[in-house]
Amino acid sequence: MRHLMSPLDFSVEELDHLLDLAHDIELHPEKYAHACEGKKLATIFYEPSTRTRLSFEAAMLNLGGNVLGFSSAASSSASKGESVSDTIRMISCFADICAMRHPKEGAPMVASAVSSIPVINAGDGGHQHPSQTLADLLTIRSLKGRLDHFTIGLCGDLKFGRTVHSLVRALARYEGVKFIFISPEELKMPSYIKEEVLEANGIPYREVERLEDVMSDLDVLYMTRVQKERFFNEEDYVRLKDFYILNNQKMELAKDDMIVMHPLPRVNEISVEVDKDPRAAYFRQVQYGVYVRMALILTLLEVKVC
Amino acid sequence: MRHLMSPLDFSVEELDHLLDLAHDIELHPEKYAHACEGKKLATIFYEPSTRTRLSFEAAMLNLGGNVLGFSSAASSSASKGESVSDTIRMISCFADICAMRHPKEGAPMVASAVSSIPVINAGDGGHQHPSQTLADLLTIRSLKGRLDHFTIGLCGDLKFGRTVHSLVRALARYEGVKFIFISPEELKMPSYIKEEVLEANGIPYREVERLEDVMSDLDVLYMTRVQKERFFNEEDYVRLKDFYILNNQKMELAKDDMIVMHPLPRVNEISVEVDKDPRAAYFRQVQYGVYVRMALILTLLEVKVC
Amino acid sequence: MRHLMSPLDFSVEELDHLLDLAHDIELHPEKYAHACEGKKLATIFYEPSTRTRLSFEAAMLNLGGNVLGFSSAASSSASKGESVSDTIRMISCFADICAMRHPKEGAPMVASAVSSIPVINAGDGGHQHPSQTLADLLTIRSLKGRLDHFTIGLCGDLKFGRTVHSLVRALARYEGVKFIFISPEELKMPSYIKEEVLEANGIPYREVERLEDVMSDLDVLYMTRVQKERFFNEEDYVRLKDFYILNNQKMELAKDDMIVMHPLPRVNEISVEVDKDPRAAYFRQVQYGVYVRMALILTLLEVKVC
Repeated sequence: MRHLMSPLDFSVEELDHLLDLAHDIELHPEKYAHACEGKKLATIFYEPSTRTRLSFEAAMLNLGGNVLGFSSAASSSASKGESVSDTIRMISCFADICAMRHPKEGAPMVASAVSSIPVINAGDGGHQHPSQTLADLLTIRSLKGRLDHFTIGLCGDLKFGRTVHSLVRALARYEGVKFIFISPEELKMPSYIKEEVLEANGIPYREVERLEDVMSDLDVLYMTRVQKERFFNEEDYVRLKDFYILNNQKMELAKDDMIVMHPLPRVNEISVEVDKDPRAAYFRQVQYGVYVRMALILTLLEVKVC
Repeated sequence: MRHLMSPLDFSVEELDHLLDLAHDIELHPEKYAHACEGKKLATIFYEPSTRTRLSFEAAMLNLGGNVLGFSSAASSSASKGESVSDTIRMISCFADICAMRHPKEGAPMVASAVSSIPVINAGDGGHQHPSQTLADLLTIRSLKGRLDHFTIGLCGDLKFGRTVHSLVRALARYEGVKFIFISPEELKMPSYIKEEVLEANGIPYREVERLEDVMSDLDVLYMTRVQKERFFNEEDYVRLKDFYILNNQKMELAKDDMIVMHPLPRVNEISVEVDKDPRAAYFRQVQYGVYVRMALILTLLEVKVC
Repeated sequence: MRHLMSPLDFSVEELDHLLDLAHDIELHPEKYAHACEGKKLATIFYEPSTRTRLSFEAAMLNLGGNVLGFSSAASSSASKGESVSDTIRMISCFADICAMRHPKEGAPMVASAVSSIPVINAGDGGHQHPSQTLADLLTIRSLKGRLDHFTIGLCGDLKFGRTVHSLVRALARYEGVKFIFISPEELKMPSYIKEEVLEANGIPYREVERLEDVMSDLDVLYMTRVQKERFFNEEDYVRLKDFYILNNQKMELAKDDMIVMHPLPRVNEISVEVDKDPRAAYFRQVQYGVYVRMALILTLLEVKVC
């Protein structure tokens, strides 16, 4: 039995199979409409995350399966002091597969060690959120046609953003991917990622402070939010914040076939005027998230569809 | 694609079709048991409303469809500052139709403007609650056999009651409906409804302060709650409150075939002794609410059942 | 139509049928996978109880039925002052059967008096929790092969524990069951149970303070939590608490075929080292809880499977 804790749990070859399956699901949803009939997904969310929870639930319902669970710790037995290990043993009696969200790093790993059903890490603190990374990879592959030989700009909070760390690690396994990190000094990509993941493997990257300066080089722009409270002082925030807000003016500098991604929810880091631009891919990214979670559920449950 | 924002979105003819469909569903539920197989309803409730949410969910399940969503803002991404527009774009990737409840007037309208799936307004502040009005109309038509030529008394808080405003607007489109408004001075039907909806169309209405005085004239009595905090002073409340509590004594004054309706939940404005009276229709109203929501889902999804 | 308020609602013969059905469900789940197709269970939980709610939901989904409801009073219309009687009348329009959890004793009984669908008491305050007792009985019968002629030790808080009171009443109806009550002075089994249930029927029992003293006599050990705040003073708690923590050392004193049960969640009253002991039955008890709830739903809905 197999769990999903990190996006690197799958080899590049396994990932290819998974993304192929997700693509086939997009093309032929009816083939998969009864694939999980009689099976149940538990969504065990110790903190709320509507988007991730509903994406998993939609995925399981699209496969003909059913869903149960809880959406916040308040409505769970965690409030009675039960350990994650005991909870997953209980959930194993109620469901065939489980997606777990937890504010503490490593909680899903602890669960997977005693679980008798596959556990998917649906986000553990600032640590990992592998199904988001799978959705990002499927979006790039579907809209750009490949996962190698392109330039990706990651923009905003690169220090604390779990999503961008995972994506860098995942893309570093493909050939010819160039990284441009666009962030204020305070929110730069951590050294351990630059050194261990990129430099150690001879993967090129650049670091810049202004989005405009690199816009024309990008095949993919991955936006994230810059939160005011992450800055050292008010002046820096005021001076820098506009560099990290994407609008139509900045989009004019970009290639015609660039795509803009965002893990959502966005607040104001992408102006709503960009939504109408055909290069805006962040809502399609949500749809790809459903397809890739369908593929993930099928893979972990070892359900084959002919 | 069509949304439902207001009960007047449907023409009288369209409403006839919808109520005919609801009636056929009541008679032949098995015909519709698989009509929405493989389809999903999202219940997006930014404030709790158990009755409305469960009625929509029961309706979709009765049609063989599935349900996902959230039941309060606390467990939604709204708490992360996401706009209603962004949320509905996300929900469009997860479901085929959406019922949205929101404390702010107009929020479902904003959502419908960018949604790629039909949006049903399931209550927006004090503004509209169209599926309740549809349930009211189906109840009257089913139990009285018609939507024209009868006298309806609306009793209680007529000033702030969104339900009664919508019902007056909806019934004003049928011939021969006479209105009697029964309320304390402080809670009278607003002038803009009396003038624009009734007087402008030559529709007769009366206003009285005591329920007993008009009980014998009514074919339909629509009760609503009178909340103490809506009164100017304690004396008025004490003097008037009993006029607006329906009990067996007042029921003795009514016609044998009158029906009593209430949008529920009731607190004490209808004495529990009235529940056994065959004219009490407020619990059957809940059942009609399920039938009419089934008809509504089928209509907006353009699902035909032969 | 029949409800389930107390575990004693079923006669010993009826219980035999129910447990036989649960056993057949365990052996042949596929026979029952569509037994409740088109039917809906409402889980009406006025206070959270993840384990009980999910067990009922898993049971109904395993039978091919669907589920709706609420998981805490905050998200229910109870906050608008609606009575339990009115709520169950509403729920009767939405579902075919209902599992109700309520902090007030007797609330499910009030509901059952006006309900037009079967109501299952899923826990009412410190009063009853019959489906837990049914799960306990099925666990004993499945793992020990019988419900008569064995010695059961109940350990921990025997004063306030609703679960153990119900289990004693239920087992007292079978022949040859001997009870050993293991608890501190402060938390002894109440006199009315010892006198009315046991002594009045000539059923033998013993009371001891230390688990070690009786370990070797037991066929079944039923553990419950001892909460610090239930003790009169700190010294008593410190002196006694270790007597009621089950660990491998104490397990060495027990028979090879003894089973350890616990209603869960546990905090520290069973050391995690015991989990690997084949005599630890508390997680299997959760699984039996699903089977017995499936049998209960089928029985109350009068669904026959051939």
